Amino acid sequence: MGPVSQVTAPPATLLRAFAQVMGEAHVLTGDAAAGFGVDWTGAFTGSPAAVLRPGSTAEVAQALRLCADAGLAVVPQGGNTGLAGGGVPLHGEAVLSLARLDGLGAPDPEASQVTAGAGVTLQRVADAGRGLDFGVHIASRASATVGGAIATNAGGLRVLRYGPMRAQLRGIEAVLSDGTVVSHLAGLVKDNTGYDYPSLLAGSEGTLAVVTAARLRLVPRAPDPVTAVAGLPDAAAVHELAQRAMREVPGLLSAEFFGQRGLAVLAERAGVAPPLAVPAPVYLLLEAAGPGAADDLAALVGDVPVAVAVTAADRARLWACRERHPEVAGFLGTALKLDVAVPAHRWVRLATGVAEVVAAADPGAEVIAYGHVADGNLHVNVVPAAPADGRHQDAVFSFVAGLGGSISAEHGIGALKARWLPLSRSPAELALFARIRRAFDPAGILNPHVLPR
Amino acid sequence: MGPVSQVTAPPATLLRAFAQVMGEAHVLTGDAAAGFGVDWTGAFTGSPAAVLRPGSTAEVAQALRLCADAGLAVVPQGGNTGLAGGGVPLHGEAVLSLARLDGLGAPDPEASQVTAGAGVTLQRVADAGRGLDFGVHIASRASATVGGAIATNAGGLRVLRYGPMRAQLRGIEAVLSDGTVVSHLAGLVKDNTGYDYPSLLAGSEGTLAVVTAARLRLVPRAPDPVTAVAGLPDAAAVHELAQRAMREVPGLLSAEFFGQRGLAVLAERAGVAPPLAVPAPVYLLLEAAGPGAADDLAALVGDVPVAVAVTAADRARLWACRERHPEVAGFLGTALKLDVAVPAHRWVRLATGVAEVVAAADPGAEVIAYGHVADGNLHVNVVPAAPADGRHQDAVFSFVAGLGGSISAEHGIGALKARWLPLSRSPAELALFARIRRAFDPAGILNPHVLPR
Repeated sequence: MGPVSQVTAPPATLLRAFAQVMGEAHVLTGDAAAGFGVDWTGAFTGSPAAVLRPGSTAEVAQALRLCADAGLAVVPQGGNTGLAGGGVPLHGEAVLSLARLDGLGAPDPEASQVTAGAGVTLQRVADAGRGLDFGVHIASRASATVGGAIATNAGGLRVLRYGPMRAQLRGIEAVLSDGTVVSHLAGLVKDNTGYDYPSLLAGSEGTLAVVTAARLRLVPRAPDPVTAVAGLPDAAAVHELAQRAMREVPGLLSAEFFGQRGLAVLAERAGVAPPLAVPAPVYLLLEAAGPGAADDLAALVGDVPVAVAVTAADRARLWACRERHPEVAGFLGTALKLDVAVPAHRWVRLATGVAEVVAAADPGAEVIAYGHVADGNLHVNVVPAAPADGRHQDAVFSFVAGLGGSISAEHGIGALKARWLPLSRSPAELALFARIRRAFDPAGILNPHVLPR
Repeated sequence: MGPVSQVTAPPATLLRAFAQVMGEAHVLTGDAAAGFGVDWTGAFTGSPAAVLRPGSTAEVAQALRLCADAGLAVVPQGGNTGLAGGGVPLHGEAVLSLARLDGLGAPDPEASQVTAGAGVTLQRVADAGRGLDFGVHIASRASATVGGAIATNAGGLRVLRYGPMRAQLRGIEAVLSDGTVVSHLAGLVKDNTGYDYPSLLAGSEGTLAVVTAARLRLVPRAPDPVTAVAGLPDAAAVHELAQRAMREVPGLLSAEFFGQRGLAVLAERAGVAPPLAVPAPVYLLLEAAGPGAADDLAALVGDVPVAVAVTAADRARLWACRERHPEVAGFLGTALKLDVAVPAHRWVRLATGVAEVVAAADPGAEVIAYGHVADGNLHVNVVPAAPADGRHQDAVFSFVAGLGGSISAEHGIGALKARWLPLSRSPAELALFARIRRAFDPAGILNPHVLPR
């Protein structure tokens, strides 16, 4: 997917200048660079003009100055686990890989914070301190990096408790396309001394600045979490139980929805064990921690069929039912991974109606839906039968827009959804985005094919 | 404080145009306008060129277009409870009062959200729904408004639990100086469809856009809170107990510091009853709610002298010791209200050292310090003996900057701290602020004397 434009290799003088900045071994072209042009799902393929692997913030700044002077467009890339094609060079841009910025400071237990380079994985942040954890918990945490997770404002499995990546930011260091380094890493809980540009960079998909480091909030590691999977008749029952869980289970960490069809595929193709002896149409996974969590969950579900796990192995088994859902559509074909959100009171409408609107556009398509019910978020994976010419997105995104929703809850716009952004944002907002963007990146070299310019 | 420049009244044609937009009764000049030129403490006094009181977002947009065309500078004003002079026309600007935008929607219990006009007080938001509360709890909540609280990113007494105003934003409506209305009020928990300008507007002190409405997160009303005031020997003991409270009391809502000197003034001048029979040098007020809160607090304080309150009247009596502290310096003279924050591990250094650095600059000055210990935040109220020529700010802010801190934790920069902003922000950051500002307000009419241009 996505047009691969003719790649013009940067002139040799420019490549030599990059090599002088970061060392020859870290300026890749040709075959050595090709791997950086493909996202992990294989859905987005481009050819990088070059791959730059700076080893420090100063090297990032020098590299960006060279790119701006040469008019060379740049796609910043972290762990390359994005799902919207925003981190691969679909139009022959250079890739600026932040993987080498992988320094992780000592956690400050008093502030419950740590400073991490852009290339540090979320798993390393989660493991940084004894008794501490990271609030953002996504399936790709072992390879997704701090920089990429900030650029896409990653959400995941514990947003209802800790918020998305933006809410974890206690400071940031970033480089503008003119080489300006802005840094604010002291780790203040409160700081009203001007504009909160860290919050703006969160979710900006590499279009405003290149994040090189962040000061991150850590959270107490939840003691003895309890995981439960309830089998339910329909999406309305899932929503109602999740709403009650939010009110009645103080230690709630996650509320995750999935269905029987995906579970059956996982059982058959990946050997995932079903959670309940008798299958249910849909499921709600709840996880909670702290004193009374097990009792609270038991009181909540009442006589609903439920599997409960407290040991790590049993919890992992239940979580596999939900966390391996992103693979389901891949077993069935090439997946369109859509990711939408609606206001809370519209979630049931979304979850029950989405298969129908897809069927109207492509009767042979299969829809696997799952996700973060407490956030009004649904991951809609579509396996098309008809050509993937945009008709599926048209159907799903128009439906979501009609419900007052967002065409991207947590994956970002990237290349995948650029066409449909006006469904979620007004012309006035899009014009403001362009104004903000020009202020940060007047050279127009940062991820130019992502978000409006 | 602050120079009052010669006020040039807008030409009669412009005043007539304003009157056509919002009605003659809502365009004030002369004596009728004067009250809008003074902040509630009386520390900042200006003379508005005119006062505009639009009654709708559309009227705000029309008024701003007229101002931009005429080059008339505008100070947006909410409840006028700011503490940094950012909401009064110190240089003869027009005041744009948002007080009439006081519509409050019905709360959505499922989403736990409400839409409020910029002129709605925080108290009304807190009272909007049965069983619901607002996460931002500040002393001035009965008159502080949603718009002003967003513009200053107000913090207050429950930041450790719910975060500041920025963290409550689920959407915003705002008007740019060219009359563009940007609106995103659907109330989505997750929405990664472009730049998060609501977060940027939070704390922007009216310099980027005029906030006209917001979609706000509501929180469950804490059932049966317990309030405790512990008497402690020194700031180190306060910090240590607050740190333990954050770890060991899951229902913690507030952790507030104050000292015996302020308490003695309040007892003498305002009849506030002391919390303990035997005075202590310093105090920590803790409030917690939820099952086990009373037991958790009792276990935490151990054999430290403590007053505990559970009835509303008793809790109010304990809270008065802390919430009336902002008045203390006013009883002693004209107060300089400084508001600083440092990283957690530096708070004791700040709390113990600040009186000394003030004494070095002005041996006769009195310092009353209190505040939000869990946030690394200290309100430093100075009653000068020497001329208030900036020496007190120099002393306090330089000390704070040396500790890696912020010269404004929650009040903003306004007019009071503009000179010292470079102590907290690098030249690169200040230059970025100016770039952002020009993108939002190319006409340069929004609060032009606040924050760098």
